[in-house]
Amino acid sequence: MTKQLNVGMVGYGFMARAHSNAWANVSHFFDTGYRPVLKAAAARNVSKLRHFAEQWGYESQESDWQAMIERKDIDAIDICVPNDLHAEIAIAAAKAGKMVLCEKPLARTEAEGKPMVDAVEQAGVPNMVWYNYRRVPAVTLIKNMVEAGRLGQIFHYRAKFLQDWTISPDVPQGGAATWRLDVEAAGSGVTGDLLAHCLDTAIWINGGITSLTAMTETFIKERVHAETGKKQAVGIDDAAAVLARFGNGSLGTFESTRYARGHKAGYTLEINGEKGSLAWDLHDLNRVQFFDHSIEGAQRGWTNILVTDGDHPYLGKWWVPGLIIGYEHSFTHQVADFLDGLRTGKPAAPTFRDALETNRICDAIIASGMSGKWVQL
Amino acid sequence: MTKQLNVGMVGYGFMARAHSNAWANVSHFFDTGYRPVLKAAAARNVSKLRHFAEQWGYESQESDWQAMIERKDIDAIDICVPNDLHAEIAIAAAKAGKMVLCEKPLARTEAEGKPMVDAVEQAGVPNMVWYNYRRVPAVTLIKNMVEAGRLGQIFHYRAKFLQDWTISPDVPQGGAATWRLDVEAAGSGVTGDLLAHCLDTAIWINGGITSLTAMTETFIKERVHAETGKKQAVGIDDAAAVLARFGNGSLGTFESTRYARGHKAGYTLEINGEKGSLAWDLHDLNRVQFFDHSIEGAQRGWTNILVTDGDHPYLGKWWVPGLIIGYEHSFTHQVADFLDGLRTGKPAAPTFRDALETNRICDAIIASGMSGKWVQL
Amino acid sequence: MTKQLNVGMVGYGFMARAHSNAWANVSHFFDTGYRPVLKAAAARNVSKLRHFAEQWGYESQESDWQAMIERKDIDAIDICVPNDLHAEIAIAAAKAGKMVLCEKPLARTEAEGKPMVDAVEQAGVPNMVWYNYRRVPAVTLIKNMVEAGRLGQIFHYRAKFLQDWTISPDVPQGGAATWRLDVEAAGSGVTGDLLAHCLDTAIWINGGITSLTAMTETFIKERVHAETGKKQAVGIDDAAAVLARFGNGSLGTFESTRYARGHKAGYTLEINGEKGSLAWDLHDLNRVQFFDHSIEGAQRGWTNILVTDGDHPYLGKWWVPGLIIGYEHSFTHQVADFLDGLRTGKPAAPTFRDALETNRICDAIIASGMSGKWVQL
Amino acid sequence: MTKQLNVGMVGYGFMARAHSNAWANVSHFFDTGYRPVLKAAAARNVSKLRHFAEQWGYESQESDWQAMIERKDIDAIDICVPNDLHAEIAIAAAKAGKMVLCEKPLARTEAEGKPMVDAVEQAGVPNMVWYNYRRVPAVTLIKNMVEAGRLGQIFHYRAKFLQDWTISPDVPQGGAATWRLDVEAAGSGVTGDLLAHCLDTAIWINGGITSLTAMTETFIKERVHAETGKKQAVGIDDAAAVLARFGNGSLGTFESTRYARGHKAGYTLEINGEKGSLAWDLHDLNRVQFFDHSIEGAQRGWTNILVTDGDHPYLGKWWVPGLIIGYEHSFTHQVADFLDGLRTGKPAAPTFRDALETNRICDAIIASGMSGKWVQL
Repeated sequence: MTKQLNVGMVGYGFMARAHSNAWANVSHFFDTGYRPVLKAAAARNVSKLRHFAEQWGYESQESDWQAMIERKDIDAIDICVPNDLHAEIAIAAAKAGKMVLCEKPLARTEAEGKPMVDAVEQAGVPNMVWYNYRRVPAVTLIKNMVEAGRLGQIFHYRAKFLQDWTISPDVPQGGAATWRLDVEAAGSGVTGDLLAHCLDTAIWINGGITSLTAMTETFIKERVHAETGKKQAVGIDDAAAVLARFGNGSLGTFESTRYARGHKAGYTLEINGEKGSLAWDLHDLNRVQFFDHSIEGAQRGWTNILVTDGDHPYLGKWWVPGLIIGYEHSFTHQVADFLDGLRTGKPAAPTFRDALETNRICDAIIASGMSGKWVQL
Repeated sequence: MTKQLNVGMVGYGFMARAHSNAWANVSHFFDTGYRPVLKAAAARNVSKLRHFAEQWGYESQESDWQAMIERKDIDAIDICVPNDLHAEIAIAAAKAGKMVLCEKPLARTEAEGKPMVDAVEQAGVPNMVWYNYRRVPAVTLIKNMVEAGRLGQIFHYRAKFLQDWTISPDVPQGGAATWRLDVEAAGSGVTGDLLAHCLDTAIWINGGITSLTAMTETFIKERVHAETGKKQAVGIDDAAAVLARFGNGSLGTFESTRYARGHKAGYTLEINGEKGSLAWDLHDLNRVQFFDHSIEGAQRGWTNILVTDGDHPYLGKWWVPGLIIGYEHSFTHQVADFLDGLRTGKPAAPTFRDALETNRICDAIIASGMSGKWVQL
Repeated sequence: MTKQLNVGMVGYGFMARAHSNAWANVSHFFDTGYRPVLKAAAARNVSKLRHFAEQWGYESQESDWQAMIERKDIDAIDICVPNDLHAEIAIAAAKAGKMVLCEKPLARTEAEGKPMVDAVEQAGVPNMVWYNYRRVPAVTLIKNMVEAGRLGQIFHYRAKFLQDWTISPDVPQGGAATWRLDVEAAGSGVTGDLLAHCLDTAIWINGGITSLTAMTETFIKERVHAETGKKQAVGIDDAAAVLARFGNGSLGTFESTRYARGHKAGYTLEINGEKGSLAWDLHDLNRVQFFDHSIEGAQRGWTNILVTDGDHPYLGKWWVPGLIIGYEHSFTHQVADFLDGLRTGKPAAPTFRDALETNRICDAIIASGMSGKWVQL
Repeated sequence: MTKQLNVGMVGYGFMARAHSNAWANVSHFFDTGYRPVLKAAAARNVSKLRHFAEQWGYESQESDWQAMIERKDIDAIDICVPNDLHAEIAIAAAKAGKMVLCEKPLARTEAEGKPMVDAVEQAGVPNMVWYNYRRVPAVTLIKNMVEAGRLGQIFHYRAKFLQDWTISPDVPQGGAATWRLDVEAAGSGVTGDLLAHCLDTAIWINGGITSLTAMTETFIKERVHAETGKKQAVGIDDAAAVLARFGNGSLGTFESTRYARGHKAGYTLEINGEKGSLAWDLHDLNRVQFFDHSIEGAQRGWTNILVTDGDHPYLGKWWVPGLIIGYEHSFTHQVADFLDGLRTGKPAAPTFRDALETNRICDAIIASGMSGKWVQL
C-alpha cells in the first residue's frame, strides 16, 4: 500500500529545481512504498515563488517558511536556501516534528551545525543532507567495489572539484545569483561549496580523516556586492588545496577552485590500492575507470566501465544498457533511498550527524589555510 | 495562457516509459504554452497496463485502443507498440481527428507507411515520428553547425549503430520482449530498428540519399519463438552495412549490427567537410568532437565540446555548465518542440511524411542486401 | 657470432629514411645474429642522394640502381621508390641473387606483382614487403589474442585509413612529392596507398576475403602535374569504401580517403567476436582497446591496454613500462624479424607472395568501384 | 663543416641506453654542425660493460671512469650512474676540461650539487642536466604557448608523477636494479626521482617557487638490501605531496608516488590561466590538451592537439603528420639542442646551475615532510 508523503519546499532556486524534479519523478521509476506530493513551496519573493510553484505543480504557496512548517498537511521540509538560513529553518522544522532534508553543506560551520544535529535527534525525525554525488551510480559502484575489497589496502585518495565561473573580476558577490561568493551567506568559498562534496564522498568510501594541512587563496580581493552595489572585501576562499592523512594510513590530496579555465563541474576522484585503482569524473558521470591488477599481465589496463547495465546500482530502474543518465538522477536516487529508509527504518545516509563531520573538516581546512599548520581532527 | 493537452498512450513497454516521462516532465522545464496530461493508457494486458498506468499516474485505462481513440477527452494518441500495429492505430486515430505521434520506424515498409501519411494529411492532424536522437543537444548542435557552413563542402558522412544483445543463440524471437527479432512484428532487423535512426539523422543533416548498395547478414539462422516455443527460421537482418551516395556529392557509409561485443547503444556519427569535421557518440551523448581547420596550425585538433552550457541547444532549460543530461531528455525536447509547433503552426519534424523517406531507404537496403545491386532512390 | 649484412638502398625519400633508421638501430636493441651495414644508396638525383647518404652514414653512393645490384658487397636491396619502379628493380635484384625488401604495395597491380613473386621464388632469395603496421606491438598483440581465441567466433572486422592532405585543389599530381596522386606512378590512389595496409592487417588477423563490393570516388577531377605544369585528369581514387565477406563468415567494412579533415594518419581497426572485441588506432599506436565479455558483468568495459610492458610484443627490448614508442619502431621490428628469419630459416611475413594477395584485393576494389558489382575473389 | 664530438659514457644501465640512442641518431635527423661519436664507455663491471659497448658500437671501453676522463680523445663526459656518484665524476670531468652532461637529479642534495656547479663554471665547460621531458615536443609547445601569453595570468599549476612498481614488499632496496630505493645511493625517493622532473618543468614554464609545504610517506618501512640480503630500514620517501606558491602568484600542487596502481610513468601536468588551460600526459606524450577561452562560446572545449605536424617543435625533423614519436626522442632533442648551443654559444638549458634549483626545492620538500611546516625558498 503506497503512502503519500507531502513535501514542503523552502526556496525556488537551482537546488529547489533539482530536488523538485526528484520528488516529482521518483515514483515513476522506483517502488518505495511512498508517493511524494509537491504540497507547498515557500519563499519571500512572491512572484518568483509563483512561477516556480506553477512550473513544478506545487499545490500551494507560502510567503513565509514558518507558516509552512506549522501546516499539519506537510510531512517533510526540504531546505534549498543559502547556507546561513539552514540552521534556523531546520531546527524549527525538527521542533515541529517534520522530517528535514537540508541542502549541503549542513551549515556554515561545525558550530552552527551542531544544534541542527541535536534538534533532529531530539525530535527523532528522519533527516538527510543532500550530498547527492554518493548516488551517482558510478560513485556507488566505486563504494561497493572498495567495500568488497577489490582494491585491497588503500594508499592514495585524490579528489578535485574545479570550476571556472568566477575568474572575471566583474562577477559580483552576494544576492540571489552569487550568494556563494558572500562569506556571510555561504560561510566559506570553494571549501564549503565544492570540497565539501569531495570530502563527503571520501570519508564515505575511505573512512575518516585524521589530520590535514591546507593552502587557501582569494585571487580577487574585492568585488561589488550585488545588492548594495558597493565594492567590498571578498571573504571567501577562491581556491583551496589540502594534504590529508586518513585513519586507514592512506594519503589524501584534495583541491578545489573556481579559477580552473575549462572545468565546469570538474569533480574527479581517484583511489589507488594494492590490488587496483578506481577513478571517476563528474563530466562523464556514467563511467568508472578501473585498473584491476589481478588481470593477466599483458591484458591489464584501465577498464572504462559504462555504468548503464541492469546490474549496476540504480540502473535497473531506468533504461537499457548503453543509454546514459544525467546529473539530476542522483537526486532521484537519494529520494528513493530516503523513502526506502522510512519504510525499513534504516535511515539513508548522510544524516545530519554524518554531514556534521564534513563541516568539521571544512573548518579545519579554513583554519589551516590561515595558520599554515597541520590540524589534528 | 497554458492549454491542457490530453495524451492517450498505446502500449506500456520501454518506449511508452520514455515517452511518458517526456509528457510528464516537459512542463517542469519548458514553457511551451501547453501542459500535457497523462489522460489514458491503453493495452490488452490488463494487469501490466494497470501497473504501468499507476506508476506514471495515467488518469484512466482502456483495454482497447479503439475505445481510447473514440474518447472526446483525448487530444493526442501516442503509439508505442510493435511496428506491425502502427499503421492501423495511426490511421484510425487520424480519422478520429486526433493528433498522432508514432514511435519509429513509421511502418515496417514504405508501402505500409504511405497510407499513414495520407491519413494524417487528409485529416490535417499534427503528427510526428519519434526519431528522438535529432533532439540530443549535441546532435542538434551538429545540425546547426553544418547548416551554418562550418564544415564547408561535405565529403563524407559515416554512421554506425552497434549493439551486442542478440549474440547468444538462446535469445528467442517474438513475444513482448523480443518482437524486434520477429520479422513479422518488426518488418526488418537492425535496418528498421537501428539504421533507421542513423538514416533519419543523416538525411536531416546532410540531405537526401540518391543511391546505395548494402550487405546484410543473419548470423543465427533459427531461433525459438518466445510464444510458440518452436524453433523457426529467423527472418530479420542481424547486421547490415551500406555504401551510399548523397545528393550533395558526399559519400555515406552506414553500419548496424547486434553482434558487436562491447557496444550497447553504440550510435556514432562523423561528418567530414572541407573546413572541418564533426563527430558524436551516443554513449557520451553530451559531447561533440569538432575539428576546426580554420584554427592556427600548431593549435589545431579535435575539440571535445561538453554540450552543457546555456547557449547550447535546449541546455538553458536544464542545469548549469558541466552537469550532463541523459538519454530520456531527447524525448522531452521532442515533446517541447511538438508543443511549440502546435503554438506556432510550424510542425515539428520529422512528420509522418519526413519519416516515410527513412522507410523508403530501409526498403532499398533490404532489397540491395538480397540482390547485391546498387539501388537508385 | 654476429654476421654483417650489407644493405643497398634504392631511394632517398620518406620511406628510405624510415627504413634506414631501422637498419641503423636494430642492433642497438635486438640480438638477431646479424649486424646490418648501410653499405650503399642509389638514386638518380645525385645532390639529393649525397645529402641523404651523408645524413645516414651510407658508406657509398650509386647514381644507378643497376650498378648497385651488381656489386658483390651488397647482400640485400631495399626498394623505396614509387610503385611503378618496384617490379623492374625487384626482379633484377632477385636475378642477381640479392635478398629483396620492397616497400608496399608490392606492385601497382596483381599482374605486375606476379612476375616479382616468380622472380624471388625462382632465385630462392629472402624477400619481404614492408607492411610495417603488423609490427606495431599493439597490432601484434591483437593478432596474438585473436589467434589464442580470446574473441571466439568473429562477426565483424572494420578498418579505416583516413587522411586529409589532398583536400585543396591546389595540390599537384606527379613529381617527387606527389607521385601518390599520379595513377601512372602509383597504380591507384587511396586503395593501394592506404587500404592496402588495412587489407594486409585484416587478412593476417582474420583470414582471406572471399567477395567484396566497393564505392570509389575522385572528388577533384583535374590537377596540375608537378613536372609538366599542365592540368590533367586525375586518375586515382580519392576515396574508397568496401563491403566484404571473409572466409570465416565474418563481415568486413573498409574505408579510406584523403578527404577526412582532422585525420592525419587515421588508421583504425576493430574486430568483434563472440567473446570480446579489440580495437586500435594508429594515432595512439601504443594502445589496444579490449572488451572482454568473460569479466564479471558489473565490471565489464573496454580496457585500455598501454602496450609498453616487458611482456608485450617487442617491448622488452625498449624502455620501461609506461614509456611509449613511435611509428618508426615498427620498421625496426620488421628488420629484426627479417633477420631472425634469416637465422631460423622461417621467413618473416609478409613475403612477396603474401603481399600479392593484397594487390589482388586492391584490383578487385578498383574493378568493383567501376562496375558497381560484387567481385568474387 | 661538421665537427666530430667524442662522447665518453659512464654507466651502461637504462639511462645510458637512452642517452646512447640519442648520441647515435641525432645526426640522422638534425643538422647541428656536430657529429657525435660513441668513443668510449666506462664501468667497473667489465662483462656488462662489454655487452653494452658492443651493442651500441662504442669504439673503446674503460673499466675506470678516471682513465676515460684523462683521455685526450674524449670531448664530453655523459654521467649515467646512481646519484651518489654524480658529484665526484662531474667535478673531475670539469677539471679535466671536458664538457659534462649529467643525468638528473644533479645531485642528492643542493649541498652536494653546489660544488658541481662551481666546478663546471670555473672550468668554463659546457654542461647540461638531462631533464629530458622539457624536450617532449608537446611540453615544449606548452612552454611556447604560455610564453606567448595564450593563458594570460596563471592561477594554478598542477603536476603528478605516479608509478606502481614498488608496491610489493618483496622488492629489495639497493643494488644495480633497485638503487633508487636506497637512500644512500639515491638521496631521496620519489622526490628526487620523479618530482624533480615535475619541478624542473614547472619552474621552466611557470617561474620560481617561493614557498611550499609537503607530506611524505614511506609505506613499506623495511626492505631486504639487494646486495647484503639483510632487511634494513627504508630511508626513502615512497610518496610525496606538495602545496606550493609560485612567484607569479599562482598555486602549485605536486604529487608523486610509486604506489598508484595502474600508473606506469604517469607524469601529468596542467596549467590554468585566465584565458585558457593546457594539459599533458606522458603516457600519450604526443598530445596537448588546450582549452582556449577565446573561442566562440558554444564551440569551446578541450582541444586535443596531436603534436606531429611540421610546425610543431622538433617534429619537422621526424615523419609526417599523424605519425607519433616516443619517449627516447626527447633525449635526441636534448642532444640536438646541446649541440646547437655549442655552435651558437647559447648554452642549452638546464645547465648545472639551473638544475641546482630543483635540488634546492627537493631539499625543501623532504625537510617540510619531516617538520610539517611551510618552507620559504
